[in-house]
Amino acid sequence: MNSDRTYSVAVVGATGVVGTEMLRVLSQRGFPVGELKALATARSAGRRLGFDGRTVTVEELTEDSFAGVELALFSAGAEASRRFAPAAAAAGALVVDNSSAWRMDPEVPLVVPEVNAGELRRASGIVANPNCCAIPLTVALAPIRDAVGLERVVVATYQSASGAGKRLMDELESQVRQYAASEAVTASAYPHQLFHNVVPGGWRMQEEDYNQEEWKLVEETRKILAEPELRIVATCVRVPVPISHAEAVFVETRDKLTAAQARELLSRAPGIRVVDDPAGQVYPTPHGVAGTDEVFVGRIRNDLSHERGLALWVVADNLRKGAALNAVQCAEAAIGIGVL
Amino acid sequence: MNSDRTYSVAVVGATGVVGTEMLRVLSQRGFPVGELKALATARSAGRRLGFDGRTVTVEELTEDSFAGVELALFSAGAEASRRFAPAAAAAGALVVDNSSAWRMDPEVPLVVPEVNAGELRRASGIVANPNCCAIPLTVALAPIRDAVGLERVVVATYQSASGAGKRLMDELESQVRQYAASEAVTASAYPHQLFHNVVPGGWRMQEEDYNQEEWKLVEETRKILAEPELRIVATCVRVPVPISHAEAVFVETRDKLTAAQARELLSRAPGIRVVDDPAGQVYPTPHGVAGTDEVFVGRIRNDLSHERGLALWVVADNLRKGAALNAVQCAEAAIGIGVL
Repeated sequence: MNSDRTYSVAVVGATGVVGTEMLRVLSQRGFPVGELKALATARSAGRRLGFDGRTVTVEELTEDSFAGVELALFSAGAEASRRFAPAAAAAGALVVDNSSAWRMDPEVPLVVPEVNAGELRRASGIVANPNCCAIPLTVALAPIRDAVGLERVVVATYQSASGAGKRLMDELESQVRQYAASEAVTASAYPHQLFHNVVPGGWRMQEEDYNQEEWKLVEETRKILAEPELRIVATCVRVPVPISHAEAVFVETRDKLTAAQARELLSRAPGIRVVDDPAGQVYPTPHGVAGTDEVFVGRIRNDLSHERGLALWVVADNLRKGAALNAVQCAEAAIGIGVL
Repeated sequence: MNSDRTYSVAVVGATGVVGTEMLRVLSQRGFPVGELKALATARSAGRRLGFDGRTVTVEELTEDSFAGVELALFSAGAEASRRFAPAAAAAGALVVDNSSAWRMDPEVPLVVPEVNAGELRRASGIVANPNCCAIPLTVALAPIRDAVGLERVVVATYQSASGAGKRLMDELESQVRQYAASEAVTASAYPHQLFHNVVPGGWRMQEEDYNQEEWKLVEETRKILAEPELRIVATCVRVPVPISHAEAVFVETRDKLTAAQARELLSRAPGIRVVDDPAGQVYPTPHGVAGTDEVFVGRIRNDLSHERGLALWVVADNLRKGAALNAVQCAEAAIGIGVL
């Protein structure tokens, strides 16, 4: 990265699961952070966070927080983003917003740098960071679309607790401890016990009995891939895993792409690591992938039920590539093309 | 059930996870058990098991174990079934075999009573009990096939540890305790840690990079449904759940069946319980379903990516309907039609 200069950065929601990861990623990647503001609700104000040898005191998020800020990374929920992102943009910051607030706004680019970095050129203040399942899915689908076109995509997800935030992570942790101590396992953050279970819900229901997460996956994938008519369906499921989301993906392509060709194609694609030696029981798993940066693809097979079908298994760290890392990569790409 | 008489029963693999469940199911359903033999390897011989107020001493399984036995329920692995089931059948017993040994033998009926009980009529000694994912899948698909025909089925599974037997159940349990005690989590029964993880493998690999479990699901579903050309694909995944398998299923039908029609149809179908109030976060989960007998279907939706598509979420206790219960139901059906 060009680090001739530094940037004044604000992280909004700095004490949350994704905000914490944003600070870690900024530091790990040597992002040229000049001034750094850690913003959060009044409840967290006054907390002190470490960043690259400095100590940063968390300040309360207000409309006036953004004077002089050049890059504002938001991950404080959709309501905070709707309320404060315009103020940050008006103050001159480039906002990269991890919430769902602006993602489907036609004026706002929804960016996965490996897929559609060019969209950053039309950003007028706010860039949306996609859903944690849509990011790895589009990273895996884009090279296939480019090579042979997409006709239909069927997805079943295996999503970790951290995708629902710290409350569900903590609840899963406490359920493990309750069980190990032979106590009753209790649930309150989620409608069902997650420990020793998988839960096909927990998200708000929307049209046609699909939940909000399933609609995000469908609509955001279409927008990122610039395929507004793409036929795509998802069943989203929460699993008792702390970090990393996995997806069983069945792709129907326009022209034939064999599993061998797909393996070769994906191996060369940006942001992807193919881990696929099934005979040796080698494939990506959420536990194995947590803390890493790539989108991992394994179990690449010809879908024997469809003449132009492929089956894939896609895994990525939902806090990093699915959230914080992708947001920082958006900022890096914005610097690269002079938008920031 | 007609209990004018009792039957001399042998349970082979009586100390295993499924064998234990077979004894429990026989007792719970009031199956007319006369003499009862509990058979296992020499290692378990001499152990004493309770059954309905009696105490049964485990005997070593040999070719000579089956004199006078009328019903032999096998769940001791494919090798034991290949070796001993013919001896049991030759001794005059009806064998219901839970292993994969005989399932794809064209001479052997592969039976899910709700779907194809009539196949029992052609049993010549051995009846095969299907794979734990194929059973609930076919129970859910059969009414749809009967109503509108099937064109293609896409399945992603969420399979519990008990599907791999007691060793993996124990390993998951010990991993929970290791984690809670802040010890290193160790894996030996499975190629990857299952606790805090999901694993798209652990089964032996076969043709086209599909594993044995995926091939079983494909081939057995075709055989049970008597649809040898059915287009079907599966990705099988192990999840850190002790009991019950779930399946995200995407069905393409020959004629249109709406989600509302499917909900109505499945509600009336044998062996199925529809649990589907998504707005109230009501759907089946493995934890909720463990210990029950039905195949639970929820998340019934129109697949918006296919004009004749349905999305379903299917869950069943893999030790009961997926194994022991289905085997006992086969025996009950055999009595009903005079085969036993």
